[in-house]
Amino acid sequence: MRDDEKAEKPRSNSPSRSEFDLIERIRHRASNHLKNSSLIPPPSSLLFGIGDDAAIIQQQHGRDTIITTDLLIEEIDFHLDTTTPWLLGHKALAVSLSDIAAMGARPQYALLSIGVPRAVWDSAFMDEFYEGFFSLAEIFGVVLAGGDVSRTPERIVIDSIVIGDVAHGRAVRRSGARAGDHIFVTGSLGGAAAGLRLLERGARLRRKRTRSTYSRMVEQLLLRQLLPEPRVSWGATLCEEHLATAMIDISDGLSSDLAHICRESNTGATIDAARIPIDPLVINLCGRRALDPLLLALHGGEDFELLFTVHPRDLRRLPRKIGDVPITYIGDITKDSGGIRIAEGSHVWNLEPGGFTHFERDAESST
Amino acid sequence: MRDDEKAEKPRSNSPSRSEFDLIERIRHRASNHLKNSSLIPPPSSLLFGIGDDAAIIQQQHGRDTIITTDLLIEEIDFHLDTTTPWLLGHKALAVSLSDIAAMGARPQYALLSIGVPRAVWDSAFMDEFYEGFFSLAEIFGVVLAGGDVSRTPERIVIDSIVIGDVAHGRAVRRSGARAGDHIFVTGSLGGAAAGLRLLERGARLRRKRTRSTYSRMVEQLLLRQLLPEPRVSWGATLCEEHLATAMIDISDGLSSDLAHICRESNTGATIDAARIPIDPLVINLCGRRALDPLLLALHGGEDFELLFTVHPRDLRRLPRKIGDVPITYIGDITKDSGGIRIAEGSHVWNLEPGGFTHFERDAESST
Repeated sequence: MRDDEKAEKPRSNSPSRSEFDLIERIRHRASNHLKNSSLIPPPSSLLFGIGDDAAIIQQQHGRDTIITTDLLIEEIDFHLDTTTPWLLGHKALAVSLSDIAAMGARPQYALLSIGVPRAVWDSAFMDEFYEGFFSLAEIFGVVLAGGDVSRTPERIVIDSIVIGDVAHGRAVRRSGARAGDHIFVTGSLGGAAAGLRLLERGARLRRKRTRSTYSRMVEQLLLRQLLPEPRVSWGATLCEEHLATAMIDISDGLSSDLAHICRESNTGATIDAARIPIDPLVINLCGRRALDPLLLALHGGEDFELLFTVHPRDLRRLPRKIGDVPITYIGDITKDSGGIRIAEGSHVWNLEPGGFTHFERDAESST
Repeated sequence: MRDDEKAEKPRSNSPSRSEFDLIERIRHRASNHLKNSSLIPPPSSLLFGIGDDAAIIQQQHGRDTIITTDLLIEEIDFHLDTTTPWLLGHKALAVSLSDIAAMGARPQYALLSIGVPRAVWDSAFMDEFYEGFFSLAEIFGVVLAGGDVSRTPERIVIDSIVIGDVAHGRAVRRSGARAGDHIFVTGSLGGAAAGLRLLERGARLRRKRTRSTYSRMVEQLLLRQLLPEPRVSWGATLCEEHLATAMIDISDGLSSDLAHICRESNTGATIDAARIPIDPLVINLCGRRALDPLLLALHGGEDFELLFTVHPRDLRRLPRKIGDVPITYIGDITKDSGGIRIAEGSHVWNLEPGGFTHFERDAESST
């Protein structure tokens, strides 16, 4: 998730730690724990856990269960003055559905833990929140199976858990990309980040229908931020048709999420700036607002599009569109030694991950 | 969980709502949602969800998956000045293991979502927290399969998710008690609540070994609050030997949790005050501290003992102890019309639920 503190500001490689370092350490610790324990279930029944979009648990007779959990924290991931309870309930489910989609699984069940302060409890918030949640759950046939309700001193916290199902061994991981694979992205990029910038600058959704083209454009960008559409059908199709070799959802930003794939797959990548499907509304808006559309599309995050890789032999089987959601070829996986690079015309640069992290390596840059 | 605002204060039946009302409404809404959706998986695959200790999901070929989630919120469920990161990591897992135990399942996997402010991130907190978590996970062979790490503006939030396994249709629910069943509780009651009172009055764990009997007693009560032991072996045995007809863990308090069983089972109950296994340390301490041991044992909560019911024909098969944890017969399930009653010598009173709720029905009583 992102917030005011994410930015185009420079990053250093100083030795303080990001959450990715912690996740690596936990992964190492959990794996030692596996080795040391004599009581654990057979290691095969936990296939791959920490360090992907979701955990994969092997069930009996050919199916795997996929589980993901996403925290949404008030003032970090959302602000009550820029969204509505209904939109928040919708988004809480959408972000976890997106993780399930990124594994290629079909979502089945959700659990929802929510903590709210007294004043929120006494308002209509909870009912509207659950309405938003159920409106999306109904689209994908997701059943709310449980959860927890708690009180907080001040702010709202939400943990959204979704459970999905996939054929055994078929979940699409981040680690399956190989040099020569083509890189694709669903839909368009930059819209959610542009929507966030607009919110930060005071734009708000209005209840009454607006007529001007500009207002409608702003509204659509706000909705890209506030009402993300998880690419469940794309994810499941890419998995079930054995099309994607690696996949991730773009939550942190294209540059960061591509780096996750490359790190887990031990590859490099080259992407072509001109091919990146920047949201046309972003291009239009950025001209008026002095923002760089390419930077928003590269580093913006929260578009919840799918980023995936395809072996060249499978390209001819790849659908062009599912529903009204197209895909775009943006570059190629290369050998590790190539690093992650972006070509803009005849110039080629290293592409540093510039997406969102909760805790940056450089502690001072985020204070 | 409980806090300073839980109390022996009087409760009214005014029409404001508790979280149990909300859970009922969500259950109703989720069930309508099930009926209205044409896309859902077969209804049989979600057996029972909202309104029990954990959700039950039917897997293929004779197994059910049990999932529970528990929020722990700083300043509500714990205070950093009264615990340690290690103890908190241990407790975060313990409370969810206790829910899995209450369903009679064997825990297998955990997911952990944690949000912390910058200052906590930069401290040794995370490493010590995970050490505490893993120390308990190792005892029960639970594998950390995933989770989420997030930043918060100020306070720590934890969502602890545990997944367990049980034979299909065998999970012990709250709704299976029948008139004539005997009511049992594992271990002893009141210790965790006494520990909380001691913390509120300034008692703290000390690093160095203490010698006086009184200090050791205080320390043990603090640990009942800070280091709960989930009754995993008891829960699984009661389920696998088909001994328990209904079960719940005592998290809110004996009076509240018994009321949950009675409401879900459409029964009443009568318990015998003299049989309640009050922690001997509580009796000893309360004499010195002007607290009522019986009230602590009845309404205190967070003991994480198991409360369960057994059909009379199965009593002879019931183990007396598992490990060093005994069980105690405390009363009987009655017809619904009897309500929930407690006998103290020749006096019989109605037992009102007095355990912890995050949001009490009477809004004014908690301001």
